Amino acid sequence: MIFYDCSTAPNPRRARMFIAEKGLNIETRDISMIKGEQHSESFLAVNPRATIPVLITEEGSALTENLAIATYLEAKHPKPPLMGTTPDEKARIMMWTAIAESQGGAPIAEAFRNAHPAMKGRALPGPLNLEQIPALAERGLKRVDAFFTMLETRLNESPYLASEQFSLADLTAFVFTDFARVIKQRIPEGNSATQAWYDAIKARPSASL
Amino acid sequence: MIFYDCSTAPNPRRARMFIAEKGLNIETRDISMIKGEQHSESFLAVNPRATIPVLITEEGSALTENLAIATYLEAKHPKPPLMGTTPDEKARIMMWTAIAESQGGAPIAEAFRNAHPAMKGRALPGPLNLEQIPALAERGLKRVDAFFTMLETRLNESPYLASEQFSLADLTAFVFTDFARVIKQRIPEGNSATQAWYDAIKARPSASL
Repeated sequence: MIFYDCSTAPNPRRARMFIAEKGLNIETRDISMIKGEQHSESFLAVNPRATIPVLITEEGSALTENLAIATYLEAKHPKPPLMGTTPDEKARIMMWTAIAESQGGAPIAEAFRNAHPAMKGRALPGPLNLEQIPALAERGLKRVDAFFTMLETRLNESPYLASEQFSLADLTAFVFTDFARVIKQRIPEGNSATQAWYDAIKARPSASL
Repeated sequence: MIFYDCSTAPNPRRARMFIAEKGLNIETRDISMIKGEQHSESFLAVNPRATIPVLITEEGSALTENLAIATYLEAKHPKPPLMGTTPDEKARIMMWTAIAESQGGAPIAEAFRNAHPAMKGRALPGPLNLEQIPALAERGLKRVDAFFTMLETRLNESPYLASEQFSLADLTAFVFTDFARVIKQRIPEGNSATQAWYDAIKARPSASL
């Protein structure tokens, strides 16, 4: 297997953290997005969409989506489980992972990529060069507020998002919560359930990679 | 189990089609989005985010995301498999499902909800009432073009998106391809691999529900 990583971006971090939680040692190549290496001819041969992370599987598939990388590694290396064991738990983990992506990751990315000067003409990753939409950056900020409120409500009911156990859902929401620093957002003061959850995950060795 | 469905929207259709492909008969309640029933007190007690579909599992969880509903039903009723059997195939199906959502479903929804008069103040589903962003509707249209090009490229390599077999990935991309009619987009003339794939899926009994 080969893992294409990038140390500065949230989506590669999700895969890197998942690999670490599984205790796996996979040959890794770092692609510098700051140097624009994702647009190099050699990387485009791996992933024509120019997105990171990518996992080349033992069977030779190039997996370009976090959910796919997690699905592969969970199926090959079921222990420790990060995607659940019973049907109901598997489903709840998938639900909270999808919620973290659409209600956390997406608005943070919208707020960042549609406002930051370095992202001019690059409002979305991928092959299309898209102009920034300032109204989308503003809307992103509003949605990030709602995301933090939702996290706090949920984490007052349950120590982890999907169940009593740490899972892919927590990993995903944790990475996005951390990445919100790029839009100057933090866990709101007083959201103590979220802060306790964040601190518990931050203490895991995988979080420091 | 109880399945909350809505006959006019693409996301409930994905779950409905998945249930039909599994040959399951689940107690179903139709929620009319045209009448705004998703904002009724009784439905908000089921899903406070006011989104459809929802599946109430045998264990009592309320699953509000398509990926979660599919994950649950696949784990409970593995045959016929719609999410793969080997690790590599499971991962490729998850990858193409995620691609269909982010590169097909998302831009179609952006183009529709940010331009259609009936969606004024409802540019996203969920509890926030968000104003339309016309530039996002335009960007959505551009991305839908790219989605159709990508589908054609992929379906020239493979009869179905993830493998030789029909899967959740095809179901997802099919529903979005069909829903593109609301923004007056169709499979471009001459994209014969996509048209053949579409026609094959359209002929499945699950597609007529």
